[in-house]
Amino acid sequence: MFEDREKTHISELGEFGLIDHLTKKFESTKPETILGIGDDAAITASDFRHQVISTDMFVENIHFDMMYSPLVHIGYKCISSSISDICAMNATASQVLVSVALSSKYTLQAAEELYAGMHAACEKYGVDLIGGDTSSSVIGMCINVTAIGYANEETIVKRSGAKEGDLLCVSGDLGGAYMGLQILEREKQVFLENNEMKPDLEGKDYIVGRQLRPEARKDIIDLFNELEIRPTSMIDISDGLSSEIFHLCKHSEVGMKVYEEKLPIDQQTYDTAIEFNLAPTTCAMNGGEDYELLFTVPQSAYDKLKNSMDISIIGYCTAVHEGKELITKSGNVVSLEAQGWENFTTTTTKSDETQTED
Amino acid sequence: MFEDREKTHISELGEFGLIDHLTKKFESTKPETILGIGDDAAITASDFRHQVISTDMFVENIHFDMMYSPLVHIGYKCISSSISDICAMNATASQVLVSVALSSKYTLQAAEELYAGMHAACEKYGVDLIGGDTSSSVIGMCINVTAIGYANEETIVKRSGAKEGDLLCVSGDLGGAYMGLQILEREKQVFLENNEMKPDLEGKDYIVGRQLRPEARKDIIDLFNELEIRPTSMIDISDGLSSEIFHLCKHSEVGMKVYEEKLPIDQQTYDTAIEFNLAPTTCAMNGGEDYELLFTVPQSAYDKLKNSMDISIIGYCTAVHEGKELITKSGNVVSLEAQGWENFTTTTTKSDETQTED
Repeated sequence: MFEDREKTHISELGEFGLIDHLTKKFESTKPETILGIGDDAAITASDFRHQVISTDMFVENIHFDMMYSPLVHIGYKCISSSISDICAMNATASQVLVSVALSSKYTLQAAEELYAGMHAACEKYGVDLIGGDTSSSVIGMCINVTAIGYANEETIVKRSGAKEGDLLCVSGDLGGAYMGLQILEREKQVFLENNEMKPDLEGKDYIVGRQLRPEARKDIIDLFNELEIRPTSMIDISDGLSSEIFHLCKHSEVGMKVYEEKLPIDQQTYDTAIEFNLAPTTCAMNGGEDYELLFTVPQSAYDKLKNSMDISIIGYCTAVHEGKELITKSGNVVSLEAQGWENFTTTTTKSDETQTED
Repeated sequence: MFEDREKTHISELGEFGLIDHLTKKFESTKPETILGIGDDAAITASDFRHQVISTDMFVENIHFDMMYSPLVHIGYKCISSSISDICAMNATASQVLVSVALSSKYTLQAAEELYAGMHAACEKYGVDLIGGDTSSSVIGMCINVTAIGYANEETIVKRSGAKEGDLLCVSGDLGGAYMGLQILEREKQVFLENNEMKPDLEGKDYIVGRQLRPEARKDIIDLFNELEIRPTSMIDISDGLSSEIFHLCKHSEVGMKVYEEKLPIDQQTYDTAIEFNLAPTTCAMNGGEDYELLFTVPQSAYDKLKNSMDISIIGYCTAVHEGKELITKSGNVVSLEAQGWENFTTTTTKSDETQTED
């Protein structure tokens, strides 16, 4: 990737020089940011609003594979997936703090690529980078992002407010990031067997993009605000729809019925699943890393949502004793018990989001 | 360490089970903590006070060595050294978020030890654990701690307020953590050459403790409050006195004169330095990880501080063009230019704190 460019060893800058160099393009613009990078700690002020905070760690060869993940996309994805957690609280992300451990195999230019991706995501979502840490690493890269957002107390949405009869909705489409991963893993194997082979990603741009450079659905949060909708519960889909349904049901003490025919699946996701002999529904139910929002709303919100092209009503909440069920296209009722993320072991990268359990 | 106990593979609990299990002893007690672990993000509220936030990453074989660092101490040190950054802003730490990546060599019991140390530190400093992430790791352990504190706007102390004539002060004593590290490294080498050898740490308990289980000087922040002292600038000593002096001088645009005879050095540190043919002053100036507070106060604060046994006045601030100088016991004037941390390459573990540069 950097063959034609000058290579600089990170040790030439020294530790303080490195963070100085990498963060100089990040300008603080939020009124909540009182003091950014440059002291023992950053200073923020939130006045009367509540603050929501989330932290996520991304580890090389667990969450990303340098064989097929460009550093600029890794940087982008770390920020956007962290901001997704703030969106899932119906809050507006405002700041991030980033720690990075880099082994000596990474040059300054590589670190710059990583931060260029982070910078693009910070610009896209309008967040300030206010703190960070860089460290050496003996082997591989490790990134931690702490994201901070603000919201009025009365607009924050937790996992715990869904009520029987509420509609279950999801933004965007599902399973794409998982199928993108399958494509990338297949091409990696081809390349490992024959270094002459170029990756064949033709016609897979959408799903590969879903895997490598996912977006946080801030636009959906803005839409809620515009339509004056407050979901009763919400979570972002990092581990897969089925797993997130379990979380909402557990925290809200409800059951849920989901209709297979209502699951939003992009044509490219569908076709690629068939190509891999996978059931598209399984990919949509259990494929992680889509970073879409799964939420519940009262039935009274139906009229406001029915025309939103990017939101699908996929089911509804039932009494807790009715359990979690998928109604298939043929009308069969399948319990979701066995489809939690823990049984989904074919994914080689997985979002290990554990902000999510108490 | 765990030879006699049952071993449980972390995979048996699953990811959500793990964080659930490890954090169940952590109770939220702070009024600022509105919602702790258990949703996409935690919720805090700070009312009218400013919030200070810092993030630090700790990497196996860079910041700690499993050969001689008990996991319970690693957990404690990660929390206390992060809280040290909040103290260095003259703020009160209130919450932490912790991410941990663990390789498969670590058992559940090992993870429990790590979190037991974190729990002890959270209890000691009165902070709530409000969020976290656990992840797999291909090789080694990586820990990230984000620490949050609160302070009134007018009491926050940055690095940038020192004035010519201000007194330069330091808490506790210096160089101990570095000499503790030398002892541990020596005993590691002895052990590596002969597995039968038991480590000889006799008479070194103080300095070994300084290395393995440092404390944040929250008591000094409390003392400032009690004595109604507001330092004009402050930083915590993670990279070494000389390095931190450079930071304060740069941010405050002053010079500094430091008196060798005033440097606080514990007898055990002194004796061990001699044993290792090192100059005790060099260890005090350049040894990192003491996590003491270095700060400046107006001369008018002298009467309030002079009787504080745990605070040493080691020098004073000069005009910026006078530079940074050490006045030796024999009256020689040595420029500190060449003694920054970047020339201090004999330390094998080092605090890579880069919250500190903009």
